[in-house]
Amino acid sequence: MDFPWPAVGAPLSDVITPMPVIDEDRLAANIARAQDYMDAHGLAFRPHIKTHKIPQVAQQQVAAGAGGINCQKVTEAEVFADAGFDDILITYNILGPVRLARLMVLNDRVKTLRVVADSTVTVAGLSAAAQGKRLRVLVECDTGGGRCGVQTAEAATALAQAIAAAPGLQFDGLMTYPAIGGASAVEAFLRDTMARLTTAGLDCPVRSNGGTPDLFAAHLVPSATEHRAGTYVYNDRAMMRAGSCGTDDMAMHILATVVSRPTALRAVLDAGSKALTSDLLGFADYGIIPALPGARIVSLSEEHAVVDLTDCTALLPQVGTQLRIVPNHTCVVSNLFDRMVFHRDGIVTRVLPVAARGAVW
Amino acid sequence: MDFPWPAVGAPLSDVITPMPVIDEDRLAANIARAQDYMDAHGLAFRPHIKTHKIPQVAQQQVAAGAGGINCQKVTEAEVFADAGFDDILITYNILGPVRLARLMVLNDRVKTLRVVADSTVTVAGLSAAAQGKRLRVLVECDTGGGRCGVQTAEAATALAQAIAAAPGLQFDGLMTYPAIGGASAVEAFLRDTMARLTTAGLDCPVRSNGGTPDLFAAHLVPSATEHRAGTYVYNDRAMMRAGSCGTDDMAMHILATVVSRPTALRAVLDAGSKALTSDLLGFADYGIIPALPGARIVSLSEEHAVVDLTDCTALLPQVGTQLRIVPNHTCVVSNLFDRMVFHRDGIVTRVLPVAARGAVW
Repeated sequence: MDFPWPAVGAPLSDVITPMPVIDEDRLAANIARAQDYMDAHGLAFRPHIKTHKIPQVAQQQVAAGAGGINCQKVTEAEVFADAGFDDILITYNILGPVRLARLMVLNDRVKTLRVVADSTVTVAGLSAAAQGKRLRVLVECDTGGGRCGVQTAEAATALAQAIAAAPGLQFDGLMTYPAIGGASAVEAFLRDTMARLTTAGLDCPVRSNGGTPDLFAAHLVPSATEHRAGTYVYNDRAMMRAGSCGTDDMAMHILATVVSRPTALRAVLDAGSKALTSDLLGFADYGIIPALPGARIVSLSEEHAVVDLTDCTALLPQVGTQLRIVPNHTCVVSNLFDRMVFHRDGIVTRVLPVAARGAVW
Repeated sequence: MDFPWPAVGAPLSDVITPMPVIDEDRLAANIARAQDYMDAHGLAFRPHIKTHKIPQVAQQQVAAGAGGINCQKVTEAEVFADAGFDDILITYNILGPVRLARLMVLNDRVKTLRVVADSTVTVAGLSAAAQGKRLRVLVECDTGGGRCGVQTAEAATALAQAIAAAPGLQFDGLMTYPAIGGASAVEAFLRDTMARLTTAGLDCPVRSNGGTPDLFAAHLVPSATEHRAGTYVYNDRAMMRAGSCGTDDMAMHILATVVSRPTALRAVLDAGSKALTSDLLGFADYGIIPALPGARIVSLSEEHAVVDLTDCTALLPQVGTQLRIVPNHTCVVSNLFDRMVFHRDGIVTRVLPVAARGAVW
């Protein structure tokens, strides 16, 4: 497939829809605002690349002062190592011989590589595969997020001891992906575990907290040494609901075209679940169309969005009209497109490959 | 990224998760069952390639007797034209100069190409771009599906007349994507419109009906000349609920690994929304794990599935265990992976590129 990507200097009206477009000024402002906040509070900042999957954007984050990057998968880390990043945290329990072998190659290439573990099975696998440079391992802690992670400070301490005793591994600290609004629970868990680790004679240099929804509350966890966040770089409707950004901070829009106006109060757009994804994240519809206040994207199929115009207060759009959509969730959109179009005030500035798209393991 | 795809002859336990795997025997049986049904009822069958996006699978469908293929986007049709398919229906309102120019190139390459239109705007665009061979156009009719399509037989007839009068275009019939269970509404719409077209002196050779949920009720629309369906080739949980397939007809599973067992009743798998998508389609959870009856995939993030084991009646899985998941919706999974692994009885038979993945326009 030979896609006609727009030329630098072209207007966004030239972009073939559906296509995400990134506002350069908002992107830069989002990066600066988060970094300034972290700097003001003396917290290291480690952006999660899952939101953009683009090395050039991560370079902007590091240039602004980020102290390394966060990946979720070994293959993502490989893409960013290839692009020269030398401080990478993979916040995932890595299992299986092929993945572990690739991880150890990466550990020898990357100056500072860290992974996480929440079970003795993961620790045993990491240790058995370790060779060359010792691998730094953080204990993943469930501080209320309800996903992975050891459940108690006692369990965290026991697993830290297992890591410290495992050949080829180095216990390097704690990591958590907290519940929204969970600062006090994170602080209590970290503080309790750090005290137990001290008693056990173990150093705990890294305490890594995370999440965009509470990014600007990161200072409420004084025991953390760093904060990880991904979505803040583009922001989305879910982050606006969480209060971590406003309408003018949305750096990603999905450009779409009205392809049908079958009834007086229905429009159909060419941005379906293959462009917006079906992530609802608790919303009742699939995104916001700023130019059509009151319009609701009520259903998606792969290639169509059905828009209910019943409560729309703007002039109703005609077939062929290009519209911008604020998606519910930007991170999942990035995994659907081979390239992203960047612009400033509607003029294309660059078209970048989404280098880590499809890095599934 | 250099993915270690499994070798032909390897067991599925060698596959790096998360990864969709396709059961060759079930795939072949699904293709044969649908074609046999269409043959028995004298209906032409036009498989929709959106579900697999793989030319080799479409070749199996055509070899079984399918009378051409159905695509949704121009770029999908280009991929399949490159693979030699010469009878393609694009069921989309195609707008915009770049897309229209590419469509006309395709029209000259492909022996029988058809598109649809539901508005005079679409018809005017098609006509203005037409050159060389006349483009065959079907009127898209909304027979209750509530997406695109003209709303009445009168409107369908008027648009057919506009197509017939437009330079470079040829009115070739009607197309609908109906509501589930909508056979009688489709038949009434087609019959009414065909009568009006006869009065207007227009031939209507093609009446294209569609959908997997009602695939085996296609004979209840005697006025249709062909039926389109995509999902039947792999099937999924939504098709099982619709009654169009059973448990033994699921040709796609997502292989996943248990990466964490943080509590006695919680397991976390490495198949998140980047593997399963967040399509709920009315279900309360994100797929079925046949080996863990009663287990429920209660939430997804991009790289994790959280499984509630409270009501699981099987032995609970350990960290490292590989599981198979029946997804809610297979079509959307195919767009997330660069290749698909095929197998027979758990032994890899072939690994095929998903050639039309990412064909967004």
